[in-house]
Amino acid sequence: MAIKLVFFTLHLLICCAVSLSKITPRFPSFIIQPEWLSVSTKSELYETKYYTQILDHFTYTPQSYQTFQQRYLISYKYWGGATENAPIFVYTGNEGDIEWFTQNTGFMFDTAPHFKALLVFIEHRFYGESIPFGGNKDVAYANASTLGYLSSTQTLADYATLIIDLKKNLTAFDSPVVVFGGSYGGMLAAWFRLKYPHVAIGALASSAPILYFENITSQYSFFNTVTNDFRSESENCYKVIKGSWQQIENTAKQSGGLEILRKSFRICKNSYMSAADAVESWLSTAFVYTAMTDYPTQSNFLNPLPAYPVKQMCKAIDNPKAGNNTFEKLYNAATVYYNFTGNVACYDLNDNSDPHGLGEWSWQACTEMIMPMDGNNAESIFPHSEWNYTERAQICEHFFKVQPRPNWITSEFGGHNIYRVLKRFGSNIIFFNGLRDPWSGGGVLKDISKSVVAIVAKDGAHHVDLRFSTDEDPEWLKDVRRREIKIIKSWLSQYYRSLFETSQ
Amino acid sequence: MAIKLVFFTLHLLICCAVSLSKITPRFPSFIIQPEWLSVSTKSELYETKYYTQILDHFTYTPQSYQTFQQRYLISYKYWGGATENAPIFVYTGNEGDIEWFTQNTGFMFDTAPHFKALLVFIEHRFYGESIPFGGNKDVAYANASTLGYLSSTQTLADYATLIIDLKKNLTAFDSPVVVFGGSYGGMLAAWFRLKYPHVAIGALASSAPILYFENITSQYSFFNTVTNDFRSESENCYKVIKGSWQQIENTAKQSGGLEILRKSFRICKNSYMSAADAVESWLSTAFVYTAMTDYPTQSNFLNPLPAYPVKQMCKAIDNPKAGNNTFEKLYNAATVYYNFTGNVACYDLNDNSDPHGLGEWSWQACTEMIMPMDGNNAESIFPHSEWNYTERAQICEHFFKVQPRPNWITSEFGGHNIYRVLKRFGSNIIFFNGLRDPWSGGGVLKDISKSVVAIVAKDGAHHVDLRFSTDEDPEWLKDVRRREIKIIKSWLSQYYRSLFETSQ
Repeated sequence: MAIKLVFFTLHLLICCAVSLSKITPRFPSFIIQPEWLSVSTKSELYETKYYTQILDHFTYTPQSYQTFQQRYLISYKYWGGATENAPIFVYTGNEGDIEWFTQNTGFMFDTAPHFKALLVFIEHRFYGESIPFGGNKDVAYANASTLGYLSSTQTLADYATLIIDLKKNLTAFDSPVVVFGGSYGGMLAAWFRLKYPHVAIGALASSAPILYFENITSQYSFFNTVTNDFRSESENCYKVIKGSWQQIENTAKQSGGLEILRKSFRICKNSYMSAADAVESWLSTAFVYTAMTDYPTQSNFLNPLPAYPVKQMCKAIDNPKAGNNTFEKLYNAATVYYNFTGNVACYDLNDNSDPHGLGEWSWQACTEMIMPMDGNNAESIFPHSEWNYTERAQICEHFFKVQPRPNWITSEFGGHNIYRVLKRFGSNIIFFNGLRDPWSGGGVLKDISKSVVAIVAKDGAHHVDLRFSTDEDPEWLKDVRRREIKIIKSWLSQYYRSLFETSQ
Repeated sequence: MAIKLVFFTLHLLICCAVSLSKITPRFPSFIIQPEWLSVSTKSELYETKYYTQILDHFTYTPQSYQTFQQRYLISYKYWGGATENAPIFVYTGNEGDIEWFTQNTGFMFDTAPHFKALLVFIEHRFYGESIPFGGNKDVAYANASTLGYLSSTQTLADYATLIIDLKKNLTAFDSPVVVFGGSYGGMLAAWFRLKYPHVAIGALASSAPILYFENITSQYSFFNTVTNDFRSESENCYKVIKGSWQQIENTAKQSGGLEILRKSFRICKNSYMSAADAVESWLSTAFVYTAMTDYPTQSNFLNPLPAYPVKQMCKAIDNPKAGNNTFEKLYNAATVYYNFTGNVACYDLNDNSDPHGLGEWSWQACTEMIMPMDGNNAESIFPHSEWNYTERAQICEHFFKVQPRPNWITSEFGGHNIYRVLKRFGSNIIFFNGLRDPWSGGGVLKDISKSVVAIVAKDGAHHVDLRFSTDEDPEWLKDVRRREIKIIKSWLSQYYRSLFETSQ
């Protein structure tokens, strides 16, 4: 048995026998704070702009000259202006709607007044409104001949050309640019600083698993971290979850077993369920996403969550009220993730809604984002499984008729021996990682040089540092942000000194 | 009147009214030493290999997966082997047949025994035998839909993937790679180190005018250096050449004037000549290429040349025997370039042979290699002219139906404020420039940091350092090479120390 994580599989794929669910889970990213945003305040936060972007930066075929409208959001509110050479903070958008990221990248809004920074959030091509081929998703997503232009290198070049053009239009040639990103956006931020040092003077790459390619990071690391997250709460919690999978399988095989599962987990009546897999996916999704977003304060990612949600899940499992009823324990844990608001009456296993437009990650996971991260070893809280490249390649052939290029990312961006390679090359990158984040194993966890540094938070989850500050933030989180601000400040000071020297 | 430099314009373009001759002159590169090479010794120098290369690294369209055979030449003769982690020296091929470059990159052969280096020379896509689209030049060169894949970024990615694959096949994972290149190949070497630091630990970029884009370098610099080269020999030499253009124009306009020119310059009878332009191009080509290859020893570039050929040209012009006969003076100077061997009976102005397969540079000069370098100011030895982007764009539209992207190179690779940008970013690059080289104005002429350094030779011409050493080499040239070797040695020592430390 292999756990299949269902992460917003594409609508168009629901029907099909082979599911895309085995593809690398998309990075869950930023958490919406509904109390903070409304339509009226949104318009005060930023303006929406469009940049005419070229389809293909790296070839000169007639097709490559096609253009599309790339969306970016901009806030001048705190900017010191071009005459002051005040800085520009750019968010390198990841796999989704840029408004969603923008409205949830509190760190940039929180720090902009201090730095007098212009804020710019650029949408990733093929996501949100930034759709090539006339903005027509039916065409752009149709097949490999159009989706083929969705790649990380094209995206980085998009960001470079847009930023250069923007600075020109603002006559802000000497305003330093700092890039920010979380998760895949953090990978893009780090790579952007490495590939375009003439455009960005530094990068804050939060929870960026740039080492989760080929064999650089153990395939078991991701789920071992999930395992440790739960085990750190209680050994019983870990054991109950670990033991449950076989029990679910056994139940499913009994006559009437699926009905027992349906009842135990309050699965909606109209929700199609043919085997244990569906329930297992539903549960494991809850465990994995909760581990990833195990924040110290109440939050709202895809689902609203309490503070320290893994602790809450384990409390539910360890609660003696449920006695020996494993399914009841699991159900109570799952509701922490699925029903914190208490409004859900039953659960639809077939819900593949994708409110933040993350679907095209499947394409990226079928081409260059080949991250061997779904192995489970004997210690894992999930059943044993091994990373299977062949299976990935088959799925990609089936759905997209595309062949992955599993070695491309390390060829283009490196990764092997990064501590040696970047020891005397490059500068001004912060890699933040929280060790409760399953992705952290693929991150840079040690300083590489004096100015390519790692900030590691033992109790942190997925890019927790980029979230809006709240009154309830623990001291360690405040400290992380203080350190980040101090480092960014030092980059800017150094830049202005250099600028002053060269203008002498 | 504008001087049109005819640099091996394409055969297919001879017919046409608008000439491609106004496009940036191709970089003259390495000088064949016929005394050194014969077919029998060539085969001992290196083996010819082919690598199955992908057409497009940056997109995932079905078309992008097409492959072609990329040629590379390899010499194991001096290699210390994988178990010793002995280094790999890679020549990043430029716009022509790789055999031509290889047979003329003496510096790598001269130094390989000392470093126990493996030598690899990779051919640039779309040149020599490395032709996409089934190796069929008729298809590959047909139009923008195929030529579109000829670009510098694709080429750098070719080199990265080939080197990574080669190291894997040799199980030489820890062998450090140093890249070498001259002229456009030197630009590629420098950019390769900047973009692929995980593949190459350092780069020797010889006569690489990476700053000859947009307005970074004066458009007059190139011809001012040509001017200074001649003027440094004698003021009279400069004045005679500078004054000659009007005289040629006046003569051409007289009745029977073209015949006077034809006779004065021994133009072959069957050589088509309709105006002064043809003779002016013929002469200016001689002056420019001689300035570029003003080497201190006898050499053989496209044409054989004596040592210090500019000095020889000026001697011919200053020779009192010719009295006031300007055409006789110019003719005598031109023969230094065109007839050093004394075998030429008459000169064919329509000779557009391209023995080294450099033709596709026209495509590159029409897409991304927009180098504003053909302006002539009042001081110039050539008539006044201004860089004219519109004209370039029109020519490119006419011949290739392609629109240049004049800002791409600086967007992708930088260039503006390079001393500030790379002061604390990147390492291990040597920029060599000889100040008699017209391209040197677009080079890096000052140290950027401790390990991104400039070596400047006042008396040097175009990538003179990369040539085979000879007994006649002047002390300054020996010194340049000694410095380069010392620096490369320091990179390797540092690399091996790091390797030792990380394996502890």
